[in-house]
Amino acid sequence: MAALTDALAQADQNRAGALDRLFALLRMPSISTDPAYDGACRDTADWLVAELTSLGFRAERRDTPGKPMVVAHADGPTGAPHVLFYGHYDVQPVDPLDLWHSDPFDPQLQDGPRGQVIRARGASDDKGQLMTFVEACRAWREASGDLPIRISILFEGEEESGSPSLVPFMQENAEELRADLALICDTGMWNADTPSICTMLRGMVADEVIVKAANRDLHSGGYGGPAANPIRVLSQILASLHDEAGRVTLPGFYDGVRDVPDDLAAQWDTLGFDAEAFLGAVGLSHPAGEDGIPPLHQLWARPTCEFNGIAGGYAGDGFKTVLPAEARAKISCRLVWDQDPHAIREALHARVREMLPPDCEVEFISHGADRASVMSTDAPAFEAARRALAEEWPNEAVFTGGGGSIPIAGHFKQVLGMDSMLIGFALGDDAIHSPNEKYDLRSFEGGVRSWVRVIDALARTS
Amino acid sequence: MAALTDALAQADQNRAGALDRLFALLRMPSISTDPAYDGACRDTADWLVAELTSLGFRAERRDTPGKPMVVAHADGPTGAPHVLFYGHYDVQPVDPLDLWHSDPFDPQLQDGPRGQVIRARGASDDKGQLMTFVEACRAWREASGDLPIRISILFEGEEESGSPSLVPFMQENAEELRADLALICDTGMWNADTPSICTMLRGMVADEVIVKAANRDLHSGGYGGPAANPIRVLSQILASLHDEAGRVTLPGFYDGVRDVPDDLAAQWDTLGFDAEAFLGAVGLSHPAGEDGIPPLHQLWARPTCEFNGIAGGYAGDGFKTVLPAEARAKISCRLVWDQDPHAIREALHARVREMLPPDCEVEFISHGADRASVMSTDAPAFEAARRALAEEWPNEAVFTGGGGSIPIAGHFKQVLGMDSMLIGFALGDDAIHSPNEKYDLRSFEGGVRSWVRVIDALARTS
Repeated sequence: MAALTDALAQADQNRAGALDRLFALLRMPSISTDPAYDGACRDTADWLVAELTSLGFRAERRDTPGKPMVVAHADGPTGAPHVLFYGHYDVQPVDPLDLWHSDPFDPQLQDGPRGQVIRARGASDDKGQLMTFVEACRAWREASGDLPIRISILFEGEEESGSPSLVPFMQENAEELRADLALICDTGMWNADTPSICTMLRGMVADEVIVKAANRDLHSGGYGGPAANPIRVLSQILASLHDEAGRVTLPGFYDGVRDVPDDLAAQWDTLGFDAEAFLGAVGLSHPAGEDGIPPLHQLWARPTCEFNGIAGGYAGDGFKTVLPAEARAKISCRLVWDQDPHAIREALHARVREMLPPDCEVEFISHGADRASVMSTDAPAFEAARRALAEEWPNEAVFTGGGGSIPIAGHFKQVLGMDSMLIGFALGDDAIHSPNEKYDLRSFEGGVRSWVRVIDALARTS
Repeated sequence: MAALTDALAQADQNRAGALDRLFALLRMPSISTDPAYDGACRDTADWLVAELTSLGFRAERRDTPGKPMVVAHADGPTGAPHVLFYGHYDVQPVDPLDLWHSDPFDPQLQDGPRGQVIRARGASDDKGQLMTFVEACRAWREASGDLPIRISILFEGEEESGSPSLVPFMQENAEELRADLALICDTGMWNADTPSICTMLRGMVADEVIVKAANRDLHSGGYGGPAANPIRVLSQILASLHDEAGRVTLPGFYDGVRDVPDDLAAQWDTLGFDAEAFLGAVGLSHPAGEDGIPPLHQLWARPTCEFNGIAGGYAGDGFKTVLPAEARAKISCRLVWDQDPHAIREALHARVREMLPPDCEVEFISHGADRASVMSTDAPAFEAARRALAEEWPNEAVFTGGGGSIPIAGHFKQVLGMDSMLIGFALGDDAIHSPNEKYDLRSFEGGVRSWVRVIDALARTS
């Protein structure tokens, strides 16, 4: 334990420098969706390469057709576990800029609800988070001269714009990137006192359905009645997809959905999730969705079929008596456990075709298909990390789920055959993707110390 | 009959001059929706006042909060019928201008599929049509020194922009405008050889339904399941509005709908309406709508409930995993016979409210409510006009219906208690509201001679 104690002490000693380094990183406007910032993204990657090199990593900027990757490797003791740490250095755009109270790329320490916060674009998503791990490596390196485990690092610069280069890059460099376990720092704590390891992420299959009838828009006076109306056809299709109990009616939709194991359900019960407050915050009061399933279970462990967009005919101001030639809907199903996105897509397409009246055609546009990620929490690393986190924070760490998708975890599993452990220190009020993004100073400093502990705990699992 | 023969001969003699006068009117860019053409609209009204004054009418430009009205009166023999002729001098915008083969406001005589055509914006809708009546008055005036009936004229300049001033103007000038019968020249022939009197026009009640749930757009990962989805709610509402036989399911919707009288149905049977060609022209082949009702009857004598527009969430390129805060649909019901638009609006609102789940709210925006117009074709004027038209054209005139709405006919009935007779000479290929609008020269010249005959026929009904 002496080594751990030293590394924690070193982390504390490094605080001021760690904040300076994070601020330097936050000053770089690495907005990946806007080509105007291509140079800034490249500079950011170079900055990270220099930083990791200074910590003894063999680090390189690796160019792709999109933004560069940063890849780094550091050896550990013989027989020690090998982890691949993932983060992303790109950030969301900052508009609307006039809602920011300070320059998004001029990081500031400000007072927040629970102490000081680091205010800047990317403070929480994901520069602050990835630096918690880099600083933990620094603390280990500076305290004991080397790392207790073998560490590889992958930083990408396209996470906020769909990661187009990621899977090809992983495929081309599979041997180099494969490790015993991936560590991903892009998630949050359960609350400011309770760390969390996210062990279930929903997958998603997303499709666009375009129903077409006449070869042009028609006048509803001249054709209303005998001519098929695509909005009506589409509405009937969408309305058919749920039954009165809120369950999805596609055949086979629930194949692969499992019950939440009792021990996990028991842990979730202890979280004190306040469904009323959760819904109340967005102006709702009545849990929709599947009858009889508690909201937290719906979000983490049940699939959905949601309509994310619909358009057809004239929907602007005033009124146009048009019978539109087509109508479209964007449909996404969140998936859990072992649901097969391709089978569900096929079932959706079959339903649409079966409900299509004569004279109507359908076009489908695929917008992705990813399985859910469910981690094997019985692997020793998960329990070890959970105990390590409990040492750092007031409350025990909890295994949580996530309603959204973090495709990288699925890619690690499918391309590299590697499980992921998702540990992050973001909080619900961090305003990621929004004006005035922040990261609690406590998240940053506690995050660094948490990774110092987790690295130690992983070393002990070997 | 000598007087009629003389008037027809005079109409023929006036041909060249009539075309010159129509061309002068067509050169005036009286686009009512665009304030840039306010001056042109005023000039057009003044031109018509001068024209009617020269024909012995007491004609005036009457200003309104919008575009001016033109009102004119000419006495007839004591005891002769009094008609109010209606047309509109404003025209649709001309964009996309690059699709026009000649300047829309530089009228040209060009070759067309059935002889020469007058090519210009407004040639058919409605300047060419209204001038058929003005030239008929000229022919009568020049042939016999006076008119055989008492004639009032109302030209408006806002028909293409919703006629906001029309009803108030009619209300304020009801005594002055009231006549035995309104004549409206804004419709078409059945085909190039077969004149038509339109005796049934569908009414319309139009509403916008906005379903609202959360107080902001949500992320479908973070909220998908427990949060109500307005697109889903709206789809279910829309899907509930028709049964499997294509009938509208609102309680009381068909109250006031009558069977088509046998004699009218028999006349419609003779029209040789080709449903296959009608649908085929727009890429359809299968009559939708109510099971077992022939398409022509659906269009003219059956009500509909159509969805003219729908919008919610993100429907642009790509995909956003949004759970929208609201979704909206524009719904219009075409009405026939004695259907009550207000009762139907109430039934629609009740249906929406009844299907609204907890946490959802609805906002309605009304976009108009007009009853159907059904003329009493057993009045002597209708049969007289039908016989008069038969003298002019190869085929007998037919009583037809119209799937669309011509609100002016309803206003004449409701504000002035006056029936309307709709006779027009437009053809299906006139491209009204589109680039390269035209009016067959035969429509114009045959239209003038038709009104000469109808005026004579009406004189004989007294």
